[in-house]
Amino acid sequence: MRIDIWSDVVCPWCSIGKKRLERALADFEHADDVEVVYHSFQLDPSSPTVPEETARVAIARKYGISVEQAAQAQAQVTAVAAEEGMTWHQEEAPNVSTLDAHRLLHLALAEHGPATQAALKEGLLQAYFGAARNVADHALLAELAVAAGLDADRVAAVLASDEYADAVTADIRQAQAYGATGVPFFVIDGKYGISGAQPTELFAQALTQAWSERAPLTVLAGDAGAEACGPDGCAI
Amino acid sequence: MRIDIWSDVVCPWCSIGKKRLERALADFEHADDVEVVYHSFQLDPSSPTVPEETARVAIARKYGISVEQAAQAQAQVTAVAAEEGMTWHQEEAPNVSTLDAHRLLHLALAEHGPATQAALKEGLLQAYFGAARNVADHALLAELAVAAGLDADRVAAVLASDEYADAVTADIRQAQAYGATGVPFFVIDGKYGISGAQPTELFAQALTQAWSERAPLTVLAGDAGAEACGPDGCAI
Repeated sequence: MRIDIWSDVVCPWCSIGKKRLERALADFEHADDVEVVYHSFQLDPSSPTVPEETARVAIARKYGISVEQAAQAQAQVTAVAAEEGMTWHQEEAPNVSTLDAHRLLHLALAEHGPATQAALKEGLLQAYFGAARNVADHALLAELAVAAGLDADRVAAVLASDEYADAVTADIRQAQAYGATGVPFFVIDGKYGISGAQPTELFAQALTQAWSERAPLTVLAGDAGAEACGPDGCAI
Repeated sequence: MRIDIWSDVVCPWCSIGKKRLERALADFEHADDVEVVYHSFQLDPSSPTVPEETARVAIARKYGISVEQAAQAQAQVTAVAAEEGMTWHQEEAPNVSTLDAHRLLHLALAEHGPATQAALKEGLLQAYFGAARNVADHALLAELAVAAGLDADRVAAVLASDEYADAVTADIRQAQAYGATGVPFFVIDGKYGISGAQPTELFAQALTQAWSERAPLTVLAGDAGAEACGPDGCAI
């Protein structure tokens, strides 16, 4: 079974939804047969690569609320994160582009696989929400990528180029094709969609339902005379 | 869309089936959205790691036919391979274990991805069927793996250990769960099964059918009030 997740690195509900899914997976008996793949989504593609203000100030300006109201909203999400066991320090978190972070997440998936991608994703989220760090900074990105198991030279080469930018765009287009207007957005086996950071119980139900409904194979072709090899030799 | 293929490195119909599927994919308009993953299957797990005889002699002994009859059977398959554009020299191909080859195919998939795995798979098949080489020999395996893009040190470490042996066993068990008694065995999107080296036209039909039947997402959970972030901000 496969779970595709669209999310952004600076998206608080994405981090909370990830944790809730992980809790559901921890209790799911077929968890070893579940592959999780992360896809790119940018909440605000116009965010700068060099931070000019905090996310808090940017949010207030963008939605026409006071900085105090934006801070209150952040505090509420931080409290939910705490219920999930995460300690966040969003106060000084910068408003920055996540394009390069997403490019590295694609590099991790393509050249190392889902486990390495998951490690980098977790590192990025902790750096941003846990320590309010600038996840557009190449030095930090390289440090997190190498800690997740990526090759330092490859990381430097990708950061210095626009490699995997097309993959980021393709992911965003795929989310649009699914009708996802926000993130996190979860797709189980290309069949079931889950929008938002739903409760752990809902993820657990969804996993069980999707697993139970896995249909047996429909044989499209092939018969006893098929050209194949088996323990009794090869057909001629 | 995803195609999972169970096959063995020393299985002639697996190589022919691979070529026919690749022809079908070459003409398939959504080929860029198709991921191909190879899985392990061992036609004869009791084959030795150091060759003692040719496959031809082993086949004759195992199935109680003459070496001449075994040679004739090989020649017939070689003729079919030639129709698919492949030049085979099976005469001296050894009867050897493919366990280590499969372990490296798992390494390639897990740490580099499907494209690297496909390159190694092709290299192994060409070495065995095209040049009758010993695909259990660690020096040859390392050479083919590095040519496919794997890291020489990682390859040496895996060959010196039993890493990925569990993954090989898990693959074989999965094939049994699908009811596959022989290879090649193709599974499209975990839904459609194709047994044997079917004609290219059948693969083409299967690809088109599987693509057209891809269902839209069923939303298992999620509503307007979901805890999510979008272009208009994050829900509180």
